[in-house]
Amino acid sequence: MQQRKFILSEKDIPTHWYNIVADMDEKPRPPLHPGTGEPIGPEMLEPLFPEELIRQEVSQEKWIPIPDEVRDMYSIWRPTPLFRAHNLEKALDTPAKIYYKYEGVSPAGSHKPNTAIPQAYYNKQAGVKRITTETGAGQWGSALSFACQLFDIDCEVYMVRISFDHKPYRKTMMNTWGAKVFPSPSNNTEAGRNILAEDPDSPGSLGIAISEAVEQAAKDPHTKYALGSVLNHVLTHQTIIGQEAIKQMEMAGGMPDVVIAPFGGGSNFAGLTFPFLRLNMEEGHQIRFVASEPASCPKLTRGQFRYDFGDAVGMTPLIPMYTLGHDFVPAPIHAGGLRYHGAGAIVSQLLHNDLIEAEALMNKEVFEAGVLFARTEGIIPAPEASHGIASVIREANKAKEEGQTKSILFNLCGHGNFDMKAFEDYFAGKIEDHELTQSEIDASLDKLATPMVE
Amino acid sequence: MQQRKFILSEKDIPTHWYNIVADMDEKPRPPLHPGTGEPIGPEMLEPLFPEELIRQEVSQEKWIPIPDEVRDMYSIWRPTPLFRAHNLEKALDTPAKIYYKYEGVSPAGSHKPNTAIPQAYYNKQAGVKRITTETGAGQWGSALSFACQLFDIDCEVYMVRISFDHKPYRKTMMNTWGAKVFPSPSNNTEAGRNILAEDPDSPGSLGIAISEAVEQAAKDPHTKYALGSVLNHVLTHQTIIGQEAIKQMEMAGGMPDVVIAPFGGGSNFAGLTFPFLRLNMEEGHQIRFVASEPASCPKLTRGQFRYDFGDAVGMTPLIPMYTLGHDFVPAPIHAGGLRYHGAGAIVSQLLHNDLIEAEALMNKEVFEAGVLFARTEGIIPAPEASHGIASVIREANKAKEEGQTKSILFNLCGHGNFDMKAFEDYFAGKIEDHELTQSEIDASLDKLATPMVE
Repeated sequence: MQQRKFILSEKDIPTHWYNIVADMDEKPRPPLHPGTGEPIGPEMLEPLFPEELIRQEVSQEKWIPIPDEVRDMYSIWRPTPLFRAHNLEKALDTPAKIYYKYEGVSPAGSHKPNTAIPQAYYNKQAGVKRITTETGAGQWGSALSFACQLFDIDCEVYMVRISFDHKPYRKTMMNTWGAKVFPSPSNNTEAGRNILAEDPDSPGSLGIAISEAVEQAAKDPHTKYALGSVLNHVLTHQTIIGQEAIKQMEMAGGMPDVVIAPFGGGSNFAGLTFPFLRLNMEEGHQIRFVASEPASCPKLTRGQFRYDFGDAVGMTPLIPMYTLGHDFVPAPIHAGGLRYHGAGAIVSQLLHNDLIEAEALMNKEVFEAGVLFARTEGIIPAPEASHGIASVIREANKAKEEGQTKSILFNLCGHGNFDMKAFEDYFAGKIEDHELTQSEIDASLDKLATPMVE
Repeated sequence: MQQRKFILSEKDIPTHWYNIVADMDEKPRPPLHPGTGEPIGPEMLEPLFPEELIRQEVSQEKWIPIPDEVRDMYSIWRPTPLFRAHNLEKALDTPAKIYYKYEGVSPAGSHKPNTAIPQAYYNKQAGVKRITTETGAGQWGSALSFACQLFDIDCEVYMVRISFDHKPYRKTMMNTWGAKVFPSPSNNTEAGRNILAEDPDSPGSLGIAISEAVEQAAKDPHTKYALGSVLNHVLTHQTIIGQEAIKQMEMAGGMPDVVIAPFGGGSNFAGLTFPFLRLNMEEGHQIRFVASEPASCPKLTRGQFRYDFGDAVGMTPLIPMYTLGHDFVPAPIHAGGLRYHGAGAIVSQLLHNDLIEAEALMNKEVFEAGVLFARTEGIIPAPEASHGIASVIREANKAKEEGQTKSILFNLCGHGNFDMKAFEDYFAGKIEDHELTQSEIDASLDKLATPMVE
């Protein structure tokens, strides 16, 4: 019998997070104060985050120890399995070997708890009583609700009103883990009340929800805020994915030739690829890395590398990022987790230095890939994860054309159990391809007054 | 760090199914022909099932070899993990050790693919082109769709109309695996057309859906029918659960004192318990076995042991079963998988011989247990599985009162990702307890003219 799964035991859960900044020749530029244009100090982040997370955000240490309490909670679902996709290979009739790391085995169904757990833990250690956050489609809100429940912290999630109304099951999932979920804009905050005063039927946006969550955290010393992607400490927490995958690829016969992951803000991409990137930097491997982004939100392939706000309304420091402009509104594709205007500072620097690649994919190709995957490998992938699968299929088909025996690894970052509406739309022929014109991109970028990163 | 998960490798996937009939002192009585009252021969089943499954249905062999092709497909998700529920134990402050076998890691989210895969395989071997089945809430239909896709057989699912309308995501899940799903009653069959002629707005029922699926299979030599529980071969296929669990309990320190599983038609209960029952029969263990059924459908605790039809409309042979009467309609509780009027013949015989126990649980206790489980162990359990959890909590509380260090194992037979509406209703205070009066039960049983099993 051919082996499908490469499985580690709990003692193989990594003991440290890998901070790639320590190994980068060219470090990411620091965030800037939007008023003064000067680099901000860690103290600017103190109203929002506990001290240890701020320390990790600016850390230059290569290995950051994972507390035992965090490893213990990781063991609820980690290590996650690594699969050889025998059935998909056969369907593609490709000489390529295809592997995937499956993060959908977490209770919340994605890789997001990898950072939600330590964020909840460090907040608990700092005496924080309540964490606020925003969520769009609900993946991040679910993960943080689960993590806060484990460490007995109150969790308040501001969920974009239109998602709150259209995705009641994600809200119920968060309630099941004890979180309070508010449709945003809400009457809880000044930001929310102002918007409701102007438009009582506002459908909300991620930008508004961030404003509400941040306002709640900033005004109460016992409340902090948590973010699920983009920031350095978030990406660093995710590196347990790639560390496990390296051990599993050793079991499977050796390192991959190419590593692929979907790209939203960068957290699942960083999680899988950074530990393999270390092998390139330290041990002379020549692994390629491909970030798969939607053609409707192509910051990596068509954006500018410049300073921009992390949020939609301009409340955060300026981050050096590949961006389409902070108020760019992507088409409402189903891969909600990839509808972010920018990329984290580390990943942006790596792309700028040609250490990683990116490609943009159209919707129909993505869903076709997702359905083929479900029909061969069984697991129904999230639309976000299906972007990675589409890139894998491109690589596998290229291997077939060129007659190469290539080894491909990708991050199946979440299952699609809560995304059935997306597949329903696909089968009903309602999925449209969205490719931006250059003038649409220019129109968004031309509004930015912030400096380019040289 | 305390170990949470006991993990096997793919080579530990069992090589044989365990057929408990071989070890039973008192065998289950044969099914009877409803017209003649005589035992039926295997040939009566030939229009519906392929030869090998009929052979297994009546087999007295103790070990039935699992074909390599089936083990290969099992390896997509098997072996499944066995967990020690440290967080739940802590929350209950119990001296009991609690373990659970988690079957929700299958792509379809429950234990059902354990039998769907071999059923699809044997049909494929027999040259069958199409399999029909019925589904209520959608668990079984999903599992069979997935299995048929793997073996390239067409799959047609007759889904109870009211579920078809209320659970579009289950339908989409089946479509994603390539199945055709029809709301039942449909215009595809005479049975369906007759009902629609009388009532064009019929909400359907499991009985009607069975009639349609069976009619389609019986009239086409290339089409067969598949059932997801109750029958002997189905229960036998599920015994891979318990066989794996025995190895895992050995890793965890020894056999459990009590094994608990939810009870619908008997398939997840049989799957976990039968291999442990063998240890009682062969090696003198004294493990207790508890079937958890809903108080609104209490065939094991309050039904009669007599011959009754397996379906609601009287199309099947008469099966010796604990039953509430084949046209008994349970309250519309959310645990759709437990809303079945009877119990499989083997399990019924075991209960009659006091080799297993049963208890009935009320809805609120069940959901309270499910939510506590989600908030401690992370995984959100299906309402069906939550019945088992409620029984576990009873045992753990008893252990605490009595100061015993008891070891409890239960079958977490599926996750609740597609059952969020149930939890939403629970949080909204809309979950009601349903306990039947004796006169309600008598009224249903008094209609039966079939003989008791002596």
